[in-house]
Amino acid sequence: MTQKTFAFVVYPGLTLLDLAGPLQVITGHAAADPSVRVAVVGETLETTETDTPLRIAPSHTFDQVPDPSWVLVPGGGAPTLRALGDEKLIGYLRRAATTAELMTSVCTGSLLLGQAGLLEGREATTHWTFLETLRAFGATPVRQRWADTGSVITAAGVSAGIDLALHLVERMRGEDAARLVQFGIEYDPRPPLGPLDWSLAPRERMRPFVDHTVREGLAGRPELRDKLLAQR
Amino acid sequence: MTQKTFAFVVYPGLTLLDLAGPLQVITGHAAADPSVRVAVVGETLETTETDTPLRIAPSHTFDQVPDPSWVLVPGGGAPTLRALGDEKLIGYLRRAATTAELMTSVCTGSLLLGQAGLLEGREATTHWTFLETLRAFGATPVRQRWADTGSVITAAGVSAGIDLALHLVERMRGEDAARLVQFGIEYDPRPPLGPLDWSLAPRERMRPFVDHTVREGLAGRPELRDKLLAQR
Repeated sequence: MTQKTFAFVVYPGLTLLDLAGPLQVITGHAAADPSVRVAVVGETLETTETDTPLRIAPSHTFDQVPDPSWVLVPGGGAPTLRALGDEKLIGYLRRAATTAELMTSVCTGSLLLGQAGLLEGREATTHWTFLETLRAFGATPVRQRWADTGSVITAAGVSAGIDLALHLVERMRGEDAARLVQFGIEYDPRPPLGPLDWSLAPRERMRPFVDHTVREGLAGRPELRDKLLAQR
Repeated sequence: MTQKTFAFVVYPGLTLLDLAGPLQVITGHAAADPSVRVAVVGETLETTETDTPLRIAPSHTFDQVPDPSWVLVPGGGAPTLRALGDEKLIGYLRRAATTAELMTSVCTGSLLLGQAGLLEGREATTHWTFLETLRAFGATPVRQRWADTGSVITAAGVSAGIDLALHLVERMRGEDAARLVQFGIEYDPRPPLGPLDWSLAPRERMRPFVDHTVREGLAGRPELRDKLLAQR
């Protein structure tokens, strides 16, 4: 049997849930589908930081998984913007895209796909506070839970990665497979305050935070920083 | 300012999302509330396995966080059952409970609270496939997203930890604080196949899996194994 690899990309400071949600879903699916191999890939195998007190370590290096079939890149705050200048990370995404069936992202991970040149002329989404910055990469921002453009799928912020991953299982193996994983992670969401009421979105409160994040993360890359700030 | 610590307990083989969901929510809240300190605690600081290819490392040892105000223990499969016999882990939970305001769990993490003697006479929940096993710890199983009994709160399977954690933020700091974190993680769930349709739950398919998990995890503790098998 030919195994195909789903590679989850890690880099320092990422948002933990962007990674953990879809990784749980796809690992759960792989337990029932031996044709899928799951790898967590990073530049090295060393333990690295997340945006929580938990530190994480990949299972493989980029070099060990040169041609994954599917790729997911998580997002984050300033560290993700900093990663836009990480040539090894961006190079990995760019090379993987030449052979992968599917490149995906969660949250501001879409900016990394954009930096790798993969969003040009596509519809894409990201965390709601960063949506307009996607224009800096030639993408058309859309407010969707995920934006499926065939070979590139971008998801909205953080928790949207769970929905994205269930969509991927459904796309790969059909409804029954996706439903089995959904029961496995008991994904029957009950947000205590209900779904988000977007009329209450803290837009004004978030704007300086986004500005600060872009300025901090791209301090060393003024051209890209200004390109992003011009859009948001 | 007095800081209170929220301790997230890790042990080998846990289910990643049980931990990562609530950890993301509480860390997000702590960013806006400096009175809350978040720690990930384990027996040692060494990197350990999860039920995914991602390895994780705690930020503190049990000894370094002897008196947390809040504790969350995640669940998992056979490794969680094995952890029922981990005296250091169970001892930490038992000691923490003597001073903590609140002991919480996600998924089969409630069995660990049960083993620490914290569920006796209480309503409690866990992953739907393990619900009846809670009786072995003197608890009354309830089918709820989370069961809040005052000083002990147990959540349902895996993804329920996100809902639990938002409930905790609401309980600690009110609706506005919980809503801010919910916008932060863009928690506006859209399961591709909709909410779980429980008439389709794969009960017969899961039964041998649960049996196998209990037998594997508790191979060295036949008495406890039989007590759990008698309930499920």
